[in-house]
Amino acid sequence: MRVITVNASKSYDILVGSGLIDIVGGILTQSFEPCKVAVITDDIVDEIYGESVMQSLEESGYDARKFLFKNGEKSKNINTYIDIQNFLAKNELTRKDIVLALGGGVVGDIAGFSASTYLRGINYVQVPTTILAQIDSSVGGKTAIDLECGKNLVGAFHQPSLVVCDIEALSTLTDEVIEDGLGEGAKYALLDKRVFMHILNKNFDLETFVSLCIEYKKQIVEGDEFESGNRKLLNLGHTIGHAIEKLSGYTISHGKAVAIGLDYILSASVKHGKITSDDYEKIKVVLSHLTKNVDKSLCPFDIKDIVECMVYDKKREGDSISLVVYNGLGNCEIESIKLCDLLGYFQ
Amino acid sequence: MRVITVNASKSYDILVGSGLIDIVGGILTQSFEPCKVAVITDDIVDEIYGESVMQSLEESGYDARKFLFKNGEKSKNINTYIDIQNFLAKNELTRKDIVLALGGGVVGDIAGFSASTYLRGINYVQVPTTILAQIDSSVGGKTAIDLECGKNLVGAFHQPSLVVCDIEALSTLTDEVIEDGLGEGAKYALLDKRVFMHILNKNFDLETFVSLCIEYKKQIVEGDEFESGNRKLLNLGHTIGHAIEKLSGYTISHGKAVAIGLDYILSASVKHGKITSDDYEKIKVVLSHLTKNVDKSLCPFDIKDIVECMVYDKKREGDSISLVVYNGLGNCEIESIKLCDLLGYFQ
Repeated sequence: MRVITVNASKSYDILVGSGLIDIVGGILTQSFEPCKVAVITDDIVDEIYGESVMQSLEESGYDARKFLFKNGEKSKNINTYIDIQNFLAKNELTRKDIVLALGGGVVGDIAGFSASTYLRGINYVQVPTTILAQIDSSVGGKTAIDLECGKNLVGAFHQPSLVVCDIEALSTLTDEVIEDGLGEGAKYALLDKRVFMHILNKNFDLETFVSLCIEYKKQIVEGDEFESGNRKLLNLGHTIGHAIEKLSGYTISHGKAVAIGLDYILSASVKHGKITSDDYEKIKVVLSHLTKNVDKSLCPFDIKDIVECMVYDKKREGDSISLVVYNGLGNCEIESIKLCDLLGYFQ
Repeated sequence: MRVITVNASKSYDILVGSGLIDIVGGILTQSFEPCKVAVITDDIVDEIYGESVMQSLEESGYDARKFLFKNGEKSKNINTYIDIQNFLAKNELTRKDIVLALGGGVVGDIAGFSASTYLRGINYVQVPTTILAQIDSSVGGKTAIDLECGKNLVGAFHQPSLVVCDIEALSTLTDEVIEDGLGEGAKYALLDKRVFMHILNKNFDLETFVSLCIEYKKQIVEGDEFESGNRKLLNLGHTIGHAIEKLSGYTISHGKAVAIGLDYILSASVKHGKITSDDYEKIKVVLSHLTKNVDKSLCPFDIKDIVECMVYDKKREGDSISLVVYNGLGNCEIESIKLCDLLGYFQ
């Protein structure tokens, strides 16, 4: 098992290893006295891990209560949030108790936001069960819910107290969910040489890959917890990706949309003379070992429509938008581009 | 006009003076570029100040939009919160824009919580129009909404960017609302010698009184922003006060309940030999210049019922509760009292 310590406004450990879910209660005893634990999970994850998690918690002396909601992004709304708040209040959780998120990004986002706002913030433990949640949403304390007019519009920065990444859990994922995570993984490969090199390694293993992504993100978050500067680098491929997700009515997954977005960014780098066509082809071959989705020909939308949609991004500031551009391996930077120049940047 | 600078996790100014509401737009230009300003207010405050605030903002180059809700604690719920979030999203506010709370504590609490969670936190300016909001809820960044099973159960710590306290606004308040604020003021008089002495001053004026209370709270908040230690001192009279409010079904105002709570605490200090009966009488005479409510004979409930209700307080930790006790002027301390000893402490 690896232990990665994040030193943000609050210091906490991320454990990465195999078979950790079954002993989660014992792991908690290293950091927490006996108390109430509100386990927040969805119906699909509950079927696989619910029983063993509740049992492990009870056996370790915790008073565990479970809140269940329907799997999927559609549940990440304000009604589920209200239900969770009422659940915490009715179960009389205090500031010494714990909210435990068991599941993928949706569970983590909504459970994290609930923990951050119940009694103005209580302890929050994350047990992410997908690649995407392990390498992305479990690090850095971003929590959120969706509004009808947009994703992640309501949320908070709330660092967890502990994160437990069980690599074995990834073996139960569907191909679609794995692809979703690997699209986000491709982003890390472009941002960080170590991740890129590991993909080339013939001894590639998921535990190392997940750990390297987390280590990269940890370093960024420690330097800029509230995203006023370098943390924006993590948006590589995301400004385009979000637009593609939105245009598709969220039928294209986040990871796939980001992967397509990465290809648009790489292509623009060739156009602007940052990398050669040859570099571009080589990078794509490496990334294809991870996922086939870094390919803009998979995008069903015209770049004009994508750019028009990007104008409504959260990262817009007045008449400009922050875009993360690729200048070479491990060398990305944030560029402010005028909205009127955005289409020309890609086309 | 006085300027009090609070150096919490974020540094911000509290302005205290007269006639500030009419020039709020001009005041904002000292800190903010032209942007969108979402003015959150209630119907009663809107009738008095709505027009002049909107006009002042527009004249100073801001794009002002108004969100109105019905006056009263009943509005401080999750439905109003959702409506505000949708209002901010539909008006496409970005992280560079401002939420401005115009009104008393309810407006400040819900607008502050909305600002703290919309896009994970945007700028928040407070224009408190009651004594209670000026001396208490405008300082320190506590924001909250109520759930059906309890007050302020959901919220966040979110420091404002600027606070504008217009003393002239206090002249439009009803006697009931003034009394509500002065109950909280009596708390500051017991915590801080300077506030106490000012009540005795024949040149007593509200601007100085409000400023002294703010300065005391500022100092506490700077030392313990997230209430892990000394900030709990500000709960003097509140643990009992909250129980009285709750038992009355919230027909007894917060300030009145706190004032009654203060008398219970003072009486207990006599019982435990911290102050003499003579001290007690003298203190009560001074406080009566401010408000007649520091008087436990005004309490319609038995101490047994109050203590039973206190057990459900947020400040409970396991089988103990944190109580702020009075040992003499400007000398209060936080004591952990076992629940089983609580009735005996007072009786």
